[in-house]
Amino acid sequence: MPKPLNLTQKLIKSHLLEGEMTPGTEIGLRVDQALMQDATGTLVMLELEAMGLKRAKTEVAVQYVDHNLLQTDFKNADDHLFLKSAAQKFGIWFSRPGNGVSHPVHMERFGKPGKILLGSDSHTCAAGGLGMLAIGTGGLDVALVIAGHPYHVKMPKVLGVHLKGSLPEWVSAKDVILEMLRRYDVKGGVGYVIEYYGEGLDCLSAMDRHVIANMGAELGATGSVFPSDKHTLKFLKAQGREADWSEQKADPECEYDAHEEINLSELEPLIACPSSPGNVVPVREVAGKAVHQCVVGSSANPGVRDFWIVSRVMEGRMAHPQVSLDINPTSRQVIENLDNENAFRPLVHAGARFHQSGCMGCIGMGQAPASGKISLRTMPRNFPGRSGTLDDQVYLCSPETAAAAALRGEITDPRELKDLYGITYPRYTYPEAAIVNTSMLLEPFEDGEGLKLEKGPNIKPLPEMSELPDQVEVPTLLKMEDNVSTDEILRAGAVVLPLRSNIPEISKWSYYIIDQGFYDRAVKNKESYSSFVVVAGDNYAQGSSREHAALAPRYLGQVAVIAKSYARIGWQNLVNFGIAPLEFENQDDYARIDQDDVIKIENIRESIAKGLPVTAKNLTKDKEIQLKHSLSPRQIEVLLAGGAINYYKER
Amino acid sequence: MPKPLNLTQKLIKSHLLEGEMTPGTEIGLRVDQALMQDATGTLVMLELEAMGLKRAKTEVAVQYVDHNLLQTDFKNADDHLFLKSAAQKFGIWFSRPGNGVSHPVHMERFGKPGKILLGSDSHTCAAGGLGMLAIGTGGLDVALVIAGHPYHVKMPKVLGVHLKGSLPEWVSAKDVILEMLRRYDVKGGVGYVIEYYGEGLDCLSAMDRHVIANMGAELGATGSVFPSDKHTLKFLKAQGREADWSEQKADPECEYDAHEEINLSELEPLIACPSSPGNVVPVREVAGKAVHQCVVGSSANPGVRDFWIVSRVMEGRMAHPQVSLDINPTSRQVIENLDNENAFRPLVHAGARFHQSGCMGCIGMGQAPASGKISLRTMPRNFPGRSGTLDDQVYLCSPETAAAAALRGEITDPRELKDLYGITYPRYTYPEAAIVNTSMLLEPFEDGEGLKLEKGPNIKPLPEMSELPDQVEVPTLLKMEDNVSTDEILRAGAVVLPLRSNIPEISKWSYYIIDQGFYDRAVKNKESYSSFVVVAGDNYAQGSSREHAALAPRYLGQVAVIAKSYARIGWQNLVNFGIAPLEFENQDDYARIDQDDVIKIENIRESIAKGLPVTAKNLTKDKEIQLKHSLSPRQIEVLLAGGAINYYKER
Repeated sequence: MPKPLNLTQKLIKSHLLEGEMTPGTEIGLRVDQALMQDATGTLVMLELEAMGLKRAKTEVAVQYVDHNLLQTDFKNADDHLFLKSAAQKFGIWFSRPGNGVSHPVHMERFGKPGKILLGSDSHTCAAGGLGMLAIGTGGLDVALVIAGHPYHVKMPKVLGVHLKGSLPEWVSAKDVILEMLRRYDVKGGVGYVIEYYGEGLDCLSAMDRHVIANMGAELGATGSVFPSDKHTLKFLKAQGREADWSEQKADPECEYDAHEEINLSELEPLIACPSSPGNVVPVREVAGKAVHQCVVGSSANPGVRDFWIVSRVMEGRMAHPQVSLDINPTSRQVIENLDNENAFRPLVHAGARFHQSGCMGCIGMGQAPASGKISLRTMPRNFPGRSGTLDDQVYLCSPETAAAAALRGEITDPRELKDLYGITYPRYTYPEAAIVNTSMLLEPFEDGEGLKLEKGPNIKPLPEMSELPDQVEVPTLLKMEDNVSTDEILRAGAVVLPLRSNIPEISKWSYYIIDQGFYDRAVKNKESYSSFVVVAGDNYAQGSSREHAALAPRYLGQVAVIAKSYARIGWQNLVNFGIAPLEFENQDDYARIDQDDVIKIENIRESIAKGLPVTAKNLTKDKEIQLKHSLSPRQIEVLLAGGAINYYKER
Repeated sequence: MPKPLNLTQKLIKSHLLEGEMTPGTEIGLRVDQALMQDATGTLVMLELEAMGLKRAKTEVAVQYVDHNLLQTDFKNADDHLFLKSAAQKFGIWFSRPGNGVSHPVHMERFGKPGKILLGSDSHTCAAGGLGMLAIGTGGLDVALVIAGHPYHVKMPKVLGVHLKGSLPEWVSAKDVILEMLRRYDVKGGVGYVIEYYGEGLDCLSAMDRHVIANMGAELGATGSVFPSDKHTLKFLKAQGREADWSEQKADPECEYDAHEEINLSELEPLIACPSSPGNVVPVREVAGKAVHQCVVGSSANPGVRDFWIVSRVMEGRMAHPQVSLDINPTSRQVIENLDNENAFRPLVHAGARFHQSGCMGCIGMGQAPASGKISLRTMPRNFPGRSGTLDDQVYLCSPETAAAAALRGEITDPRELKDLYGITYPRYTYPEAAIVNTSMLLEPFEDGEGLKLEKGPNIKPLPEMSELPDQVEVPTLLKMEDNVSTDEILRAGAVVLPLRSNIPEISKWSYYIIDQGFYDRAVKNKESYSSFVVVAGDNYAQGSSREHAALAPRYLGQVAVIAKSYARIGWQNLVNFGIAPLEFENQDDYARIDQDDVIKIENIRESIAKGLPVTAKNLTKDKEIQLKHSLSPRQIEVLLAGGAINYYKER
């Protein structure tokens, strides 16, 4: 009798093309579905063009436009046209600007239990709520998968989370994932897929599970997996997609690499304080602070329920005079359903600024808060400056908690709404059938091969990459702490995101949040040195999957990162763009390099290729530091070639 | 028996504080109401602070926030808080961000037949649709009025426009004002108030008249006036403000300084082609051009009807796959009424990107079109680059024409919709009562005197102004053509608008649309010269009322403009900020100055003060050029003092 498997292992096993299912070793997976959003998609399309792709080889590939919706000049609109032309050329679905946020729309229209989805967005993992394995990664990995290659990733361990009990009033799915973040912080999930199971699932709808799976990204997890059960069926049925349902569940008696348990009945409203999603406390501990903005929306709270509950709380009441209540509807379909359930107009009447469908403030695309003022958001991230305001004070919470603050003008435990305003907890009833709105999803062309790509003047070719040098003697241009996010490495927001298809321009924003003078120093560095290295603590390059956080520093001359440890996607992206992701053999050596120290490394190529230790000499301090790496044999070849584009070109 | 007066003259007479009602001479008016929007309001509030104002002296003053709604960093949100604190300090109403566009909201809540309204926005004139005299002007003029001073303006001539007949199907108010622009172009209204009368009024609702009065700004008119009649009463009644109605009409047998006649029955759908609102042709003449964006909204088509008709056309249909259909609802109240009339959801279903309430793309606050692609807008202006895209192709049209293009993907005469899609013309029935939504209008404080202004780090004090020099020998830093707009002098849009409260920063965008190197040249000029002049053709500084178009060049050293003629508000703003607005005595001399020519003017102060001719020597070409001005005695004093702030400080 074969060994019983958990659901994650079953999903992997059914898609395994290369490698063994031994945690930590590289495996190659057959990927069924691919997802791009526009901020990462332009590079994916340029990569597909460079590969000479004729037609996407995945079952389903979808290009969404949900990030760059504020068109402050020609760039974003040009990119939308480029993406549409590329989608049509390569046989890819195209979700038009304003149709909605990729993850929930994908779940509604394409998500399918038992499948593997790869997406060039770190929150792709949200689809795990539907009994899939969904993984966020850099754009180049997605391009390779669309071109028919396997996806390479380290075989994860699986953390089994046993959910017990049932959510109390005023506590919802967001509080479950905030509880996970409270326990595990932003790197507690690295190397794991988190698999939820148990009787507690019964109080979580498919979209609730999306909320929890979505912010698995914030734990650093490779993915989050939920079984496909009656809730999944109900969801797909309401979307008119009953036929796509299949049951997905772990084998009885299966094992997990690690165990966790949450009693939902004991949860209370939680909130992540500035400026990390892992900085979680009970709402009551920070209650009373004045709030100036409440933003509801994003893929971390995308369901009709999440807006509906805010509407029911606000109905007949008014947002506090000092609060800007911003509503970012997930999609046109969510707007229609909200209106159908009489939950749209009460929001408008209560003072909501009702925005177009899309990510909006979640990625700093507008909605930046005032200097030093508190903003409560139902979004997944509050990394420093991500909102667009450098000294921002962003808290992450549930819609219930956001509504309570919008009403009262201060952080408020939503359980107090009963006493304060006489509001009894409104329970959402999921409809048997949703209004389905597919008219802005353009089907792939039958044959787009002859089509020309529509490239505006801001769409520049990818820079050439040289191969990894064998020796460097270069300065440490920046020394960073733990948990540096890709937002800090390369800004999001309305100013920088439109530059995603123009590497020379976007490189000016490298490490901007950490050091506004970095770009100038990097340019000056070129006068004396061939390149530079940077030093970081644990969990370097967490957060968004943007490969620009590798590509832009690389363009400026970054040859290696020396860190205590890496976040998964950021680490993969470094390799994909030919930057050596080195690790301290001895973590105490982190203290033995300071900014500006000149580092000499000899025989890098040979050492990396042969698995020998890499020895760095700190010439400034006259000290030797032993470094290592955890690259697979394939990754070593990619790195030596100067990145995946060179590597796949050579083959 | 006194001479019978037209309505404009009656409104002026009842408010006349200084001067005679002789066209072309300066008069001083008592102003009842004041309106600010946020992009101009920050300066107004700084000016009020500088004047030490205790409490607004107008009957009603309202600070709206409708321009700077895209918060890409802290600046706009900080400005909103600043404006709120200032409104509360100075006894001014505050319309919160997202509440709606100033002009229609003002008309709904505060507009009152028989009153005079002054606003720091060029489209303030829209309120003329309600039987008021409403004038747009620079912020400093509005600040002075709020502080209790009269408003000084040249007594206008009055152009009487006799409206006959009735609008045919698929032709609406926008086509009436486009017909005026076709006949008069962008400076045909300079020096006039346009007064509409006649039996044709009977087919125009109050909000239709708002549309026509609004774009009087594009004709260069001082204002547009409609009588207050049963349509006005119906409008105010629906808003619950019947008590504010009074009849306002011209005396029988009154005279006009000029006459015009439009037979509405003979109008057809019109469109203003790039890149001037005066470039008007019948829609059929440009039909067939591919359209990539249709934007509905702005103060030039703000009524529920204007969205409703698009909704009825689109209902059950889908925006063409290549068209981005952007809907900018006027206000939260308009959204609620649209939804109440079942006209909201059909728009969303048809693919509309439904944005927050406000000006949005009208002032380049997002919605910039793709490079070189055609955008149809129901907005009032299509000056070059105003959309945010430098090579934009913006057409201005009615909601009917915009809807036809959204459906078909190409410019289409809406009268063809019957044959093409079987759509019969939907006629809007005005409701007896509207849903009224006042909850985001904050009432003035009883006593705000002790309040502190909340100033974020981007809010800088106004620069000091030196008095007008007596002699200059300076270069001509720029030579321009006719009809240069304030958009070209100082950009609108999401990048530049947030700098409105920071003159040193915003000055970097001076004349950017005309010459992207201007700022660098102006900085370099300071190394050799004390200041500079610029030369222009007719109608210099048309368009938006932004005083930054005077203040920013002044900050860079602009001491005088030498032009063939000026637009009214731009001309007043030059004086208010101490820049001499000189005119060619002989228009042919325009050809005798080229860019970079060094101009010497002696005894400027004395010549201007004594009404003597001003002689400019073109040292480069060795030619003498006679100049003049048309300043009032008061304006001469203001100019010599270095602007109105110095002038009023001295008194």
